[in-house]
Amino acid sequence: MNVALKTIVTINENIVEISRDLPTVIIGERINPTGRKAVLAALEAGNFDLIRDDAVNQVKAGSTVLDVNAGVPGANEVELLPQLMKEVMDVVDVPLCIDTANPEALEAALKVYPGKALINSVNGEEKSLEAVLPLAKEYGAAVIGLCISDSGIPKTAEGRLEVADKIIERATGMGIAIEDIVIDPLAMTMGADHLAGALTLNAVKLIVEKYGVNITMGSSNVSFGIPDRKYVNAAYMAMAIHAGLTCPIANPMVTEIRTTALAADLALGRDEYGMHWIKEFRKRKKK
Amino acid sequence: MNVALKTIVTINENIVEISRDLPTVIIGERINPTGRKAVLAALEAGNFDLIRDDAVNQVKAGSTVLDVNAGVPGANEVELLPQLMKEVMDVVDVPLCIDTANPEALEAALKVYPGKALINSVNGEEKSLEAVLPLAKEYGAAVIGLCISDSGIPKTAEGRLEVADKIIERATGMGIAIEDIVIDPLAMTMGADHLAGALTLNAVKLIVEKYGVNITMGSSNVSFGIPDRKYVNAAYMAMAIHAGLTCPIANPMVTEIRTTALAADLALGRDEYGMHWIKEFRKRKKK
Repeated sequence: MNVALKTIVTINENIVEISRDLPTVIIGERINPTGRKAVLAALEAGNFDLIRDDAVNQVKAGSTVLDVNAGVPGANEVELLPQLMKEVMDVVDVPLCIDTANPEALEAALKVYPGKALINSVNGEEKSLEAVLPLAKEYGAAVIGLCISDSGIPKTAEGRLEVADKIIERATGMGIAIEDIVIDPLAMTMGADHLAGALTLNAVKLIVEKYGVNITMGSSNVSFGIPDRKYVNAAYMAMAIHAGLTCPIANPMVTEIRTTALAADLALGRDEYGMHWIKEFRKRKKK
Repeated sequence: MNVALKTIVTINENIVEISRDLPTVIIGERINPTGRKAVLAALEAGNFDLIRDDAVNQVKAGSTVLDVNAGVPGANEVELLPQLMKEVMDVVDVPLCIDTANPEALEAALKVYPGKALINSVNGEEKSLEAVLPLAKEYGAAVIGLCISDSGIPKTAEGRLEVADKIIERATGMGIAIEDIVIDPLAMTMGADHLAGALTLNAVKLIVEKYGVNITMGSSNVSFGIPDRKYVNAAYMAMAIHAGLTCPIANPMVTEIRTTALAADLALGRDEYGMHWIKEFRKRKKK
């Protein structure tokens, strides 16, 4: 299909639309203790200055949706996640991508969220489908579906599509609009398997052809353990956007990430008269 | 079709294969007086030092085929082109892409060329088809077909495909193997038309789906007149390779060009165990 479904997320009066007809949305990834010791320490200490700065800086750098993750080992995520969100919402007014594996924390977060959030994430495991989809439905949130099933991460593009099939079927069957489902086909490192990147690009193609849904991924994962990652990340993100990626989860403060998304939009005719490119170029030069 | 046709070009004992199953071939673009005043002056003066250096440096930087163009206004290209080729062949042993609009110069060049050359180019105009295809056939060369017809450069992807249809039909009709035809769908600047890049990506997709032929283009053309060109060029080349570009005509000495081609190959599973990426990384670090 050539349909470009539109996912809408909001906060207060602000609306962000995600679609293959519109510029790429970079979901800012930095407010996450996983792999970022400074965020972990800040969350453990209950000191939110760093996190507030991360929020402001990511929005300045062009993110229009921010991922928020409070997964600190041993912490009470049910309390910490809403608190973290409050700190972020105090300083920026962009929709949030609520990133948790804990359904109770997810519900606590959805309860306090003033708008239509993006849930990160449900996956194809029975337990996850049963816990997360009812919350997405109840709170009217959009939801990211990860291509993992009860038997693990499929090792073929067709297998990833099958998990997407299952998530989409189950969600729409309970009345969640297909526009509110964003699929993450999982970007895995090519440092461990040199075919991993190609597999994910093929999965994107298959899923987009079949459903036209929006696609997210942590595209920089492909380069873990590979030298000169920035070049690999830039090329991979451009190719993934060409394949159908619409809202990568990434760090917008990395020049190559931001310029690649903008350049890809320009190359796909999504940046009328190149105005966006020119405007961001001027912003870069002022620094 | 999912066929990946293989174009073979040679010089003396050296063979270069171009195919979507193999790493991207960067056809080095620098030996061309168009837009390079130093090359123009060198050719006018009959001083080939710069050109010999350009040949050596492009091959060092990873080009396995070199474009050679002797189109100096007012010069006798029939003499100058073979002379230029001789100078290049003295210092490097990679197949040449013979770049001329002059059929007599082309024949003079093919006569002295020790192998199977790549002709740059024939196009869809009657005059060009009649002059160039018989030479490709007679000398057993591969040939680049530009998507220009008697009525100009088509303004749609389907129109570019129609010109490719015409060139392929005419060439194969006279016994040229389809593997020996490489199509250039024409990359035009997005500075003049912000939809120009998307149009060419779509044309690549259509042509590749229909024929599986190899695709070339001067992909950096898309960024003429646009600031911070290098980011646009890198993203566009990655997307074009994803769409089906196999042998861009580009400057391999520009880091972003070379790294993008290598990263795209890695991302498409064409670089087993990432060995190529690692090797080139080490080369860059040594500089």
